[in-house]
Amino acid sequence: MSKKTSLNAAILIIGNEILSGRTKDLNSSFLAQKLLSIGIFVGEIRVVSDKKSEIIAALNTLRKRYDYVFSSGGIGPTHDDITSECVAEAFGVPLHINNEAKKLLISYYAKENIELNQARLRMARIPTGAFLIENPISKAPGFQISNVFVLAGVPKIFQAMVEEILQKLAPKKAIVSRTVTKNKPEGEIAEKLAKIASRFPEVSIGSYPFETKGIIGTNLVVTHQDEKTILKVVFQLSKI
Amino acid sequence: MSKKTSLNAAILIIGNEILSGRTKDLNSSFLAQKLLSIGIFVGEIRVVSDKKSEIIAALNTLRKRYDYVFSSGGIGPTHDDITSECVAEAFGVPLHINNEAKKLLISYYAKENIELNQARLRMARIPTGAFLIENPISKAPGFQISNVFVLAGVPKIFQAMVEEILQKLAPKKAIVSRTVTKNKPEGEIAEKLAKIASRFPEVSIGSYPFETKGIIGTNLVVTHQDEKTILKVVFQLSKI
Repeated sequence: MSKKTSLNAAILIIGNEILSGRTKDLNSSFLAQKLLSIGIFVGEIRVVSDKKSEIIAALNTLRKRYDYVFSSGGIGPTHDDITSECVAEAFGVPLHINNEAKKLLISYYAKENIELNQARLRMARIPTGAFLIENPISKAPGFQISNVFVLAGVPKIFQAMVEEILQKLAPKKAIVSRTVTKNKPEGEIAEKLAKIASRFPEVSIGSYPFETKGIIGTNLVVTHQDEKTILKVVFQLSKI
Repeated sequence: MSKKTSLNAAILIIGNEILSGRTKDLNSSFLAQKLLSIGIFVGEIRVVSDKKSEIIAALNTLRKRYDYVFSSGGIGPTHDDITSECVAEAFGVPLHINNEAKKLLISYYAKENIELNQARLRMARIPTGAFLIENPISKAPGFQISNVFVLAGVPKIFQAMVEEILQKLAPKKAIVSRTVTKNKPEGEIAEKLAKIASRFPEVSIGSYPFETKGIIGTNLVVTHQDEKTILKVVFQLSKI
């Protein structure tokens, strides 16, 4: 994209189930679209395994490179849920039972008539200095520490937490995009397209081939923060 | 996973369309499953933008850390297709028109009665020292250079190229996994599960909550190269 005129973010998906292909990652495309709608561009997505050293290394790299980092997964009650301790270690802060989080769990499990055992209580461990992110579904909270947002992996809970966060992130000017559809294959328009792209180096022009009902065509997606600039490019593209 | 008893791989998805959430990445879960079936474990997936410095940096990091790297996207005819030049630069080798690739394109476009213009000819640029990977659909080839496999992004072509590669990668002992389904929530079995996991540190035991028709349960996925070990763990899990 252009020279850092907008905020950017990285998404860190934690979990062997995605790396094995067993589970499809639905969270990153959901979050990427939501972030774009408030002007935050996702610059990178990483999927790493449930391994402490991998998670910490990815967290430390991404939180330094991007304005925001959003993680998904690894904050449940089982032995392979190790995200919270990794975040604490990455930031060099202690991980203790958080009273506010514990209260949320006590009241939820009491209402559901389920035992709050030691495993479930692990979900109240929050790095010192973090703010809780509400989980309207099963109450075990996510949290924000500095520029890192730690969210659940279960899509329904992840999505609810994202909605919660979006309200708080100050709404910025959205990044706008327009799509020009050509009923011509990429190879036929590529040369003219390259010329237009080189005249507008600050604008992202993506070229995506498609095939529908035997028609081979190309979607040209023009993305920029300034709508007038987009319209100029769209006009040029309409002529090729 | 365990201490490097099996081969591992990274998947590098290249393209702004995935980072915007506009297009869903179907390629990595397809490839991850195929690789597991021949005993290659995917240790990391990265999605990066159509930006030269990002692609080169990711390629150089991943090819040193993993036995294999598989990239997807950015080898078409348009200005935003820059993967081949990035791979050449990452390996420090020239990028020229490859005669074998050019012949493939000439014969394909002649048969289809389509002009082989300069933009389409870009798809014959292959880093020196690379081997072509057949594209049975639209002929523009992928390629392998050292431990890096460069594949198309269009899922139909990507999948065909993967099938092509799998035949050539010597079939290793598959990594086997067994799933034990519990009709109990994660929090209820977490403590016993943690004890079993700690008794079998070399075995990966993933815990994945699910909810179907009002039943809250947990899938426990046991993964290891040795089936006997898996069965031992499955037996333990059946009792909790």
